[in-house]
Amino acid sequence: METTLTEADLLPLAAEAVGHLKATGRTVAVAESCTGGLVSHLLTSVPGSSDVFRLGVVAYANDVKTALLGVSEEILSRFGAVSEPVAEAMARGALAAGRTDLAAATTGIAGPTGGTPDKPVGTVCFSMGSDAGYVTLRQHFAGSRSEVKLQAARQVLTWLKEAT
Amino acid sequence: METTLTEADLLPLAAEAVGHLKATGRTVAVAESCTGGLVSHLLTSVPGSSDVFRLGVVAYANDVKTALLGVSEEILSRFGAVSEPVAEAMARGALAAGRTDLAAATTGIAGPTGGTPDKPVGTVCFSMGSDAGYVTLRQHFAGSRSEVKLQAARQVLTWLKEAT
Repeated sequence: METTLTEADLLPLAAEAVGHLKATGRTVAVAESCTGGLVSHLLTSVPGSSDVFRLGVVAYANDVKTALLGVSEEILSRFGAVSEPVAEAMARGALAAGRTDLAAATTGIAGPTGGTPDKPVGTVCFSMGSDAGYVTLRQHFAGSRSEVKLQAARQVLTWLKEAT
Repeated sequence: METTLTEADLLPLAAEAVGHLKATGRTVAVAESCTGGLVSHLLTSVPGSSDVFRLGVVAYANDVKTALLGVSEEILSRFGAVSEPVAEAMARGALAAGRTDLAAATTGIAGPTGGTPDKPVGTVCFSMGSDAGYVTLRQHFAGSRSEVKLQAARQVLTWLKEAT
């Protein structure tokens, strides 16, 4: 449990992610639901991030996920917005919309309301990848709305700084 | 000059903006360039913001402004990305893409590099409006990249909490 994580703690990680992408000549797009723009904000806090960061889509409404990211209504209704298949579809959509080398996506329940027995508050699904393939992950984070957002952003930044 | 502005200072303003939109039954989309997701992050930090916030587009690359927000290449080349006409076109594009009642946009030079004599670091153009019309504004903020982002975000949140 990371009750003390702050945005300032994540700035060095964001700088590492931007540095890694720059060093390896890749661009990135981010599709965010539960993180609500935090990943984009952290990446763009790094001077020179415009060399690698091209697009962030904060797709809070389901029909926005469909219209802007091409997430099909079928997988939204079949798996629910908070699911690995939707996370991967969001990442694929961000990659296509941003015409980037890499894309990452988050979809989850930041709370304090909106949880279900199957998907409690703090549940977050992630995906990251490229045309070569995507990895997906489902995690559960403890803490407040803010803490869930921060822990989820940390996962994305960690992936980006290690992207092969 | 606001050298001490922090994100924590803006959270009450974000809560007021969300509360005002909720009370007046309006939805909002945000198109961000220089604020890089900070406005979306602040709005979505407010519990219940999903009732009013539908879409954020962090359009860092010019061709992304065109592809996702419909900003014409003609006004981008004629006025430059940091201009009132581009800010208004971004807001109009966000409103259409998010199918919202209101939209706001930011485009500017957060720094530390990228300034010109005509548009020094800290120059930010804003637009906010609805189908009834848009207001635009050009401001210059002092301070670091982070301080420029924060001051620009404050302008958008202030507009949203007062939106008529």
